[in-house]
Amino acid sequence: MILALDAMGGDYGPAENCLGAIEACRKFPDLDIALVGDTDRIGSAIDSVETSIKGRLHIVSAEESISMDESPARAIRSKRRSSLRLAMEMVRSGEAGGCISAGNTGAIVAGGVLVVGRISGIDRPGLGVVLPTLEKPTLLIDVGATIRCKPINLSQFAVMGSLFMKHMVGVSQPDVRLLSNGSEEIKGDEVISEARAMLVENSHVDFGGYIEGNGVPFGHADVVVCDGFSGNVMLKSFEGLGELALKILKNEVDKRILAKMGLVFFLPMLKDLQHRFDYQRFGGTPLLGVNGAVIKAHGRSKAPAITSALGVARDFVLKNGVSKIKEEITDLLPGEEDV
Amino acid sequence: MILALDAMGGDYGPAENCLGAIEACRKFPDLDIALVGDTDRIGSAIDSVETSIKGRLHIVSAEESISMDESPARAIRSKRRSSLRLAMEMVRSGEAGGCISAGNTGAIVAGGVLVVGRISGIDRPGLGVVLPTLEKPTLLIDVGATIRCKPINLSQFAVMGSLFMKHMVGVSQPDVRLLSNGSEEIKGDEVISEARAMLVENSHVDFGGYIEGNGVPFGHADVVVCDGFSGNVMLKSFEGLGELALKILKNEVDKRILAKMGLVFFLPMLKDLQHRFDYQRFGGTPLLGVNGAVIKAHGRSKAPAITSALGVARDFVLKNGVSKIKEEITDLLPGEEDV
Repeated sequence: MILALDAMGGDYGPAENCLGAIEACRKFPDLDIALVGDTDRIGSAIDSVETSIKGRLHIVSAEESISMDESPARAIRSKRRSSLRLAMEMVRSGEAGGCISAGNTGAIVAGGVLVVGRISGIDRPGLGVVLPTLEKPTLLIDVGATIRCKPINLSQFAVMGSLFMKHMVGVSQPDVRLLSNGSEEIKGDEVISEARAMLVENSHVDFGGYIEGNGVPFGHADVVVCDGFSGNVMLKSFEGLGELALKILKNEVDKRILAKMGLVFFLPMLKDLQHRFDYQRFGGTPLLGVNGAVIKAHGRSKAPAITSALGVARDFVLKNGVSKIKEEITDLLPGEEDV
Repeated sequence: MILALDAMGGDYGPAENCLGAIEACRKFPDLDIALVGDTDRIGSAIDSVETSIKGRLHIVSAEESISMDESPARAIRSKRRSSLRLAMEMVRSGEAGGCISAGNTGAIVAGGVLVVGRISGIDRPGLGVVLPTLEKPTLLIDVGATIRCKPINLSQFAVMGSLFMKHMVGVSQPDVRLLSNGSEEIKGDEVISEARAMLVENSHVDFGGYIEGNGVPFGHADVVVCDGFSGNVMLKSFEGLGELALKILKNEVDKRILAKMGLVFFLPMLKDLQHRFDYQRFGGTPLLGVNGAVIKAHGRSKAPAITSALGVARDFVLKNGVSKIKEEITDLLPGEEDV
């Protein structure tokens, strides 16, 4: 299987991305990786790697790259030789089974729609993140692909999210819930309550009603559906609070002799927890609803996160993620009269 | 000063609310409290209290109460003898300097608008929560009064939030930021970028641009402005993650002998942190933009939280919170051409 990696994406650039690709080749013997970007920088990043791995890394030259603060749709349209666009074109043409980028989220979404194309019947794609929670992994969809949604978008995220958790994560009957500002039926706005009504009617989704922000970390749903703005706020809030907790712990322990002594006893537990709740461990974020495996890695991905994202892409391809959605979506989507 | 307490509001009912009121009378000798609700239940809750305090507690009979899942505006309109509505009428008539309720948030907001009334020039009220962060308290506004906002609403929350932090919390030049899904100018939707443009132009607010969810717990702003949906999601996400952390800590420590030993050393630090990050410690949440001191306490408020909310209301009245907003708002609000 060939996967295309946008070697220029993310905060750490080609060196880190290539390291991640090298490690992925070691981990998955069935993998070939197209490294798309600046040939010189990629070349030197993989220069010293053993021949057996090097033979599975293919440099694809891209003269341009898309930065984090560029206008997404414009960048994808105008930068036809950008690493992200070329990686996506490889997916469209079938040269690559899937593509991975740690770059500009908006551009990945725009490229997913404009270059790879949507699955027929899907109005807007959704970006899902698998969050570790107390009990089990939870898919939060959308976290930034579609900032403001129509009811049909939320309803389609629910369907795609449910399929993803079923086929990719192995949850037999995913409990799907809509994020709202209260659990009572009267909560939410017009869009959310209309999506609720659509999901109550949809016999193919096991819809459990509303979920509030405080239910998510406890794993009170397998799939949490929301618009990209709320999902982004929630994801980043979790991220920030997690970082804050570690920082405070460090500061406080440094200040207190007793706590410093206690830390010796706590360390194994803290390391274990940190690992358990590191959502980057789950690697990439699938862009669901596009006609190919498009995986977004976190902008701050270092090599292990890139390796992990490549693993997610490989898994998505092996399990025929796109075909599964395509096959079931026609049947699962609400009929025209509901749209 | 007389404050009106909706004795029927919140999850724990009159007994807990009255306990909170008794403690507030002990703490603040200048306070008289009108306990609005079921006379029998209030009577028995304050029956055994010493005469000096009892003389400052005044039972106001209300035959109805508004439950948590009632439709807010309808409940306020139809239940004219509800404890919440009567408490608010005392504010409107001037009998009470302010009112406090741990009840239905939507009904408090509806009552604020329909019974107490808005400050002239204010389109929609905003509910602010003072969050403890790493460095300093941060006001998050709105957390549920106005679910979806127009740009003018966000802009007015910024102005009121800034005034609140300046006069009530004592921040000399509050750094006001808009919550968005990225820090770059191209982020946000039409509403948010229009609000951004209004705030950049507003020389009375020290506007610092966008803030993301992960910047909030670090205290990267004094005032975080958002619509009620996002604010509610963020607030509850923090709440949920905090609860989860405590639960996990407890479970893990119970499982591990070493960690159990370490806990002895950690306990003072954990208690300190728990106290520092308990946002209920800041007590009530002011409904800004209505023509009176209306303070919402958390639905799960026990007596200490009610005492604290009464303290916030007292402070708001003593510092002429409403007048300060009224005085400055005319000058601070954008002119008609910006609306």
